[in-house]
Amino acid sequence: MIYPKKLEAIIEFYKKLPGIGEKSAERMALATLDLPTEEITNVSNDLIDAKNELRPCKICGHITDKEICDICSDEGRNKNIICVLEDYKSVFTFEKTGNFKGVYHVLGGLISPTEGISYEDINIPKLLERIENLKNPELILALKSNIEGETTTLFIKKILEGKNVVISRLSYGIPMGADIDYMDTITLDKAIEDRKKISD
Amino acid sequence: MIYPKKLEAIIEFYKKLPGIGEKSAERMALATLDLPTEEITNVSNDLIDAKNELRPCKICGHITDKEICDICSDEGRNKNIICVLEDYKSVFTFEKTGNFKGVYHVLGGLISPTEGISYEDINIPKLLERIENLKNPELILALKSNIEGETTTLFIKKILEGKNVVISRLSYGIPMGADIDYMDTITLDKAIEDRKKISD
Repeated sequence: MIYPKKLEAIIEFYKKLPGIGEKSAERMALATLDLPTEEITNVSNDLIDAKNELRPCKICGHITDKEICDICSDEGRNKNIICVLEDYKSVFTFEKTGNFKGVYHVLGGLISPTEGISYEDINIPKLLERIENLKNPELILALKSNIEGETTTLFIKKILEGKNVVISRLSYGIPMGADIDYMDTITLDKAIEDRKKISD
Repeated sequence: MIYPKKLEAIIEFYKKLPGIGEKSAERMALATLDLPTEEITNVSNDLIDAKNELRPCKICGHITDKEICDICSDEGRNKNIICVLEDYKSVFTFEKTGNFKGVYHVLGGLISPTEGISYEDINIPKLLERIENLKNPELILALKSNIEGETTTLFIKKILEGKNVVISRLSYGIPMGADIDYMDTITLDKAIEDRKKISD
């Protein structure tokens, strides 16, 4: 082994992160050692704290260090417009556009009959509960354009039939099969602006 | 602020590492949260341990978690051939070629009259001490091909004049001004193989 044990451990850690190969991980680990002790101690604590403190918001399922996330507790946001997402990571992507003034609901997965994932396994019951307490709510379904995403979209549309809920989904601007997290903010803005009501 | 405080702190940390921009840092921080608690705890400890445990080898100045590094304490290596490097990071680069069976000496800097760095500010006195105790030693100077590198190379050559030391330096294969750490192993092998004795 070329590297001292602890340095090797840090390299192995960095290699687990997305887009980081062997050579990058090595350079990053060596650069880490060059940082002041204080910064190393801080990030070491931050890593543990982040893992311990961050949990799903009790209302929307977004990640937060509070009981209710900043978005759900923001009085300035329209609680009647709920953007439904598969993953909390996408909330950050949407928030960066800065233009969406509604709130979110994070499903934490998609319905998949082949993998045995039903609507009860993801955060849909909680979504239905939220909607019950709203007057004229609107749902914007921003799910992947693959089979699971379409299945989940159709399920939500079906289960809310007859209830007074406007359901739309993100429209053109998002390429088929692409990951929402890779979208540029202009495309995302466009997709929110041009959201399309699901017709029967 | 879009991100919870601790997550933001981790993003800021990653941004300090080489080659990591805003977007990469965000993706890496989010991916970090997906790792099991145990791995987070481990790397958190590894970071602090690495910073505390790793120190210069008492003989060659390479980074190590022991008093004497594995290379210096390796009986199979030729202690009479010393490859002189600016930075311990370059030791790892050389070790990856797997072909160099001598030992190293890490200067931890280069002589720079403009910046007021003399030979005593870097690890040269220790190098002279090492050489005193060797019979027919050979130095391979593998320093940058910039002014500071050339100055340091010439200084070492001059101070050892008349002593029975063969001094060579890495020859062609390394482009002018390039960083040794970016070399591929074949080029480095070639440069070791074709090292050139410094003529008067």
